[in-house]
Parts: sequence; C-alpha cells; structure tokens
Amino acid sequence: MNIDGEHFRTIWVKKTDVKVIRIIDQRFLPHKFVIEDLRTVDEVATAIKNMHVRGAGLIGAAAGYGMYLATLEAVEKSRFDRYITLASEKLLATRPTAVNLSWAIKKQLASIKLGATSEEKIDLAYKTAHEIADEDVNCCRKIGQHGLKIIEVISKAKEGGTVNILTHCNAGWLAFVDYGSALSPIYAAFHKGIDIHVWVDETRPRNQGASLTAWELGQQQVPHTVIADNVGGHLMQHGLVDLVIVGSDRTTHTGDVANKIGTYLKALAAKDNDIPFYAALPSSTIDWEIEDGIKEIPIEKRGAEEVKYIEGLHKNELKKVLLTPENSPAINFGFDVTPARFVTGIITERGICNANKASILNMFPERKKTNG
Amino acid sequence: MNIDGEHFRTIWVKKTDVKVIRIIDQRFLPHKFVIEDLRTVDEVATAIKNMHVRGAGLIGAAAGYGMYLATLEAVEKSRFDRYITLASEKLLATRPTAVNLSWAIKKQLASIKLGATSEEKIDLAYKTAHEIADEDVNCCRKIGQHGLKIIEVISKAKEGGTVNILTHCNAGWLAFVDYGSALSPIYAAFHKGIDIHVWVDETRPRNQGASLTAWELGQQQVPHTVIADNVGGHLMQHGLVDLVIVGSDRTTHTGDVANKIGTYLKALAAKDNDIPFYAALPSSTIDWEIEDGIKEIPIEKRGAEEVKYIEGLHKNELKKVLLTPENSPAINFGFDVTPARFVTGIITERGICNANKASILNMFPERKKTNG
Repeated sequence: MNIDGEHFRTIWVKKTDVKVIRIIDQRFLPHKFVIEDLRTVDEVATAIKNMHVRGAGLIGAAAGYGMYLATLEAVEKSRFDRYITLASEKLLATRPTAVNLSWAIKKQLASIKLGATSEEKIDLAYKTAHEIADEDVNCCRKIGQHGLKIIEVISKAKEGGTVNILTHCNAGWLAFVDYGSALSPIYAAFHKGIDIHVWVDETRPRNQGASLTAWELGQQQVPHTVIADNVGGHLMQHGLVDLVIVGSDRTTHTGDVANKIGTYLKALAAKDNDIPFYAALPSSTIDWEIEDGIKEIPIEKRGAEEVKYIEGLHKNELKKVLLTPENSPAINFGFDVTPARFVTGIITERGICNANKASILNMFPERKKTNG
Repeated sequence: MNIDGEHFRTIWVKKTDVKVIRIIDQRFLPHKFVIEDLRTVDEVATAIKNMHVRGAGLIGAAAGYGMYLATLEAVEKSRFDRYITLASEKLLATRPTAVNLSWAIKKQLASIKLGATSEEKIDLAYKTAHEIADEDVNCCRKIGQHGLKIIEVISKAKEGGTVNILTHCNAGWLAFVDYGSALSPIYAAFHKGIDIHVWVDETRPRNQGASLTAWELGQQQVPHTVIADNVGGHLMQHGLVDLVIVGSDRTTHTGDVANKIGTYLKALAAKDNDIPFYAALPSSTIDWEIEDGIKEIPIEKRGAEEVKYIEGLHKNELKKVLLTPENSPAINFGFDVTPARFVTGIITERGICNANKASILNMFPERKKTNG
C-alpha cells in the first residue's frame, strides 16, 4: 500500500544488501515513520516480541525472514542444524497466540532440510521467506476481492448510500505484508468508488486501531472516524453500522475466531442488532487441530504496564503517561475468542464460507481427514 | 468515605464561610488531590460542564448548591426571580443526560418559591441544598445495604471464595455525595469482611474507572484490578466474573438503563455467560415519563479531543498526549442505553426489583398513574 503516495510492503529485503531485512517499526506510528534494519534472528525475535511488527500475516512473514537470517548466521557456527533448531525455538517463543508463527517456521524447517549443503539451505530459506511473503500478499488480495462482494451488496441495498463498516484493532496491510485481511475488502471497495466510511475502534490497551488502522486508512484517503472501544454497541443500536469486519490471529476449523481482545464484545452487539459480522483471514491462520476456541486457544497475557501507561505525542515528542493510581494493579489479556455462533461468515482467499466445520472443510476439502 | 483515613464528602459548605461551596476537583485524580472553592452559580455550572464534578448524584447535589449560590447572588440583583430562572436554565444546560440535574433544580425552584422575602428564599435554598445532599447520602447507604445481600448470596455459594465483581465507569462515592451507587454494596460487603475483588473497567475515553474508581477503591483498601474496556467479555467467558454492578445516569421506569458508554457491551457479555447484571441507582435517576430508553434518552456527544488526546502523569506532571494521527476525525458519545432485557435487577434505596415497569412501579407505588 501507499505511504505519501509511494508503494511499500511492511517487510522486505534491503535492495543493496540481501543480508539485511527491513521493516516499518510500527511502535512509532502514527507519529513517526521509522524503518528498522534487522540483521540477526535475535533482532527479528525482538522485533516480533516487542511488537515492532505485529499482526497475523506479518508475524509469519517476519518469522520466515528470521529463519533465513538464521541460516546466514548458522554458516558461521559449527553445528548448522542445531543452530537452526534453536533459532526456530527462539522465534516460536515470541508470541503464543498467532498460528502463522509456527506455520511459517515449520515451512522453513521443512524447506531448509531439503538442502544438502549450507549454501543450498541458505538459498532455500531465502526463496521460502519470499514465498511466505508473496503468498501472504496474494491471499490478502484475494480476500479483498471476495469481501468486496459483501460490501457491494450492502451498497446496492442502500442505493449507493454510505456503507459504514466497523473494524477492531489493525488487520490492515500493516498486519500483513500488503493489503491486509479485514481492511482488504475495504480498500477494494474504496478503489471501486463505493461510498464507504470506517469506524475505527481505538483498541486499548495498545491502541492499534487509533494508531495503525487510522494511519493506514488516512494514507490511502479512506474516510474513517476513530472511536473508543466502548462506542460500537451504541452505534449499532442506532443504525450507524452496516457491517463489522475483523481479522483473526487464529480461527478454529469449527469457526471460533481468536482476535484482539474486545472483538467478542463487538460480535455480541452485532448479533443483538442483526448486523453481519465477518472475520477475514488467510487460511494459514486456521487451526485444523482444535475444536473449541475458548477452551483450547492459549491467550497471551502481556505486561500490566501496557494498561497503566500509554504513549502519545506531546509537543512533538513521544511521551509515556501514567493513567491509573500508581499502586493499582492491572491485568492485560491480548486476545479473546468469539464463538462461531456470532460469526456471520469467514472471508478467506478461496471465498466466503459459514463459520462451522462443514462449511470450512467444504472450502478446504484437502483438510478433510479420512478418519472423521 | 475516606481519603488517607480522613472522612470526606464530595461536596460541602466551607466551615468558615457559608457562602463558599467546596468540591474535590476530580479532573486531577488519581494523580493530585485538589479541593476547589465555588462562589458563584457560574462557577458551579463550569464545574459541572467541565466535569470537575460528575456522576448522577453529585451533579444533582452540585446543582442544588448552585441554586443556593444563585439566591445569594440574586439578592444583589434588582429582579430576584428572573435571576433565579436564568440560573436554573444555565445549570440545566450543563449536561444533557443526567436526570438528577433537572430533578434537583426543580426541587430548588419549588422550594425557593415558598419564601416571601429574599432572605427566606436564601434560607430555603440553603436548607434544600443540604436536603438534596443528605438524601443522596441516605439513598446510597441504603443501596449498599440492599445490594450487599446479592454479594452475600454469591459469597455463600462460593463457600467464602473471592467474589469477583466487574464495574464500569465510576459509580462510587466520587459520583455521589458519599458511598456511591454501584460501589456502595461493594463497600458494605468489604466492611463486613466478605472476600471480594473488583474488576475496574478503565472506561475510555475519560478513564473514570482507571482514575476515579481505582483511586477510591485503593483509598478504602478494597482489592481491585484495572482492565481495558475490551477485557470484560473474556473474563466472563472464563468464569472470572461473578457479578456485574454498574450505576445509571438515567433509568426508564420500564427498566432501560442509560449509563456510561460501553455499559451495553458488558451487559451483552454478562447475558451470554449467565452472569447477573445489576444497575444500582437512587430512584431520583428514574425517569417516570419515557418508555423507550434507546429511542428517547438524549445521549450527550462530547468533544472529539477527548478521544484523540489523553492526560496522564509524566515525571510528576500532568501531560496531555495525542493518540491518533493528527488529521483523523474522532467521535465521542458519552453514554449508551442497556435495554431492560439484559438487566437482572435494579438496586434502589427501597430494595431490589426487576427491570420492568410492573416491578419498578410496585416498588414505587406512588408513581402509579390513575389513568394507566
């Protein structure tokens, strides 16, 4: 997508040095646009763990490039394979909820294994890292095309009137390599000239909506309004929301959607007000093993200081301010699970299906197990 | 309630000068404890409008004392009655949602009218202002005693295990003259030695939970944890909430509850997880006229800057920081309405009733209209 009119991906190999991975350090958005160079697997792990990069697809792509950097480092070590295993474990430990992380690492491990020499292994890792990134871009573009149809139907029903779409957190191009998941249909609709407006949940405590979604929508000039996370229900009660689209960090093949904390509350309100609620996701985020999202998806608990303090711009400098009494404890869950019964449909790169096992397996028949 | 062990009300007449009303200027909490002197009805109007004082009961009490200050000022004006009318209109215009505001002003206007001389009018206004404040204290104390029974039942069912109570915004003593509404049963339970713990929604955008509720619970040493507004649903899904108690700024006599924006989302989650959801309120906040809360209760729209900027403590100074892209628009609704079907019960000074017209009118039979 564009930044000041110039096309960017969220992660790429430096043109003048293939041993350097570049990312947009998202911690400084929307106030400062910072590009960071990553040269080691440790730097990639830190970037994922401390959320320089975040979002399902981008975490996967970063892990892919991280494994490539690991092969470069491993050459200098005596035990190549042992180093690759340690690197994969290091990357895997950075974030517990995102399924793309393990997906990308597994793909890299399988690929690297095929190389006979360390040089071959490096080449394979480089190629696979690109494949993971390109596949992400491709998936997201297709999600946009499929999701566009939903927006077109609503636009027609409203006779061209503004389609108001609510989204939570950031499932835009900043969460992937390009296009995004939840925002991809929105960009597709906008580029087709459909009159749309996006309600942007600020998404406490890390405010990815207020900082990232608002910023990227603004950069593409899509009309939007930032709201506190408390507001969505009220807007829905008053007919001000036509559609909810969110992303997902992990979706069970039974249709339960793990996404940024607070998503479940918006899904409840959408249901109560008969508003369609869609999760948009590349199929790499579908978990084909577990059945019960609430019981089985591990939910990341992050530091209390993310609730107690917030960072923002004060006189052109980033400052962190305390919001609570200094001694009050706080707790910080990163995600929640929206049960399938609240999900109108799932938008994937293959098309739109219902949020249940039969419909999801119908769209991905290769996943049907012979034993059940 | 106590601050550093000393008893305070949220509003009182200065001991050494009955022409001065004192308030805790809540804009500086939890970081600084500031007492403000109010000497004119204009200063009271500003204090209400700019939320030096806020909360259903306290707004009513402040309006009562404001009308008393108006009578003092009116003496110096040639047209006493005209001045009182203007003062009442000024106070009435400060906040559109709180029903206590008009209730207190009407009570004062009726009382002042009874005085033959301006001195009598001043005396009556002084007396009535105190009555309004005392009645608020009395109501809140009784709400605590009635609500305590609900907590006791849960505590027994859990065999003395911790009762986890979630609350939204601040309906504590800072929102009233003393005790509070939603927090009053919590204080009563705590003082009775029941093992309780309070989940405090931070309550964006103005963070009354993180700043006021956390502060006053901390001052009374009640165990509590601050959470982002997005977290309640997740906690409920995982059995970590036994009870929700919120306040109300206006409740229809049909049981619809207008309260701080975001309350509706918590009520939806409570319903979905079979958790009791109570609104605690003095009957002065019941609206006996309107039937449909969502359609008929006017919802205050406040400035977008309350969403875009937030204030907190940085190196011991209060600093306001920008959270969104500078050019992104934001919108700010102050309240939402929770339909009666999501409300388990209403805790009033007379007892607990169901959230429907029959049950509410049964508790307040004097409100039954002969014509239906």
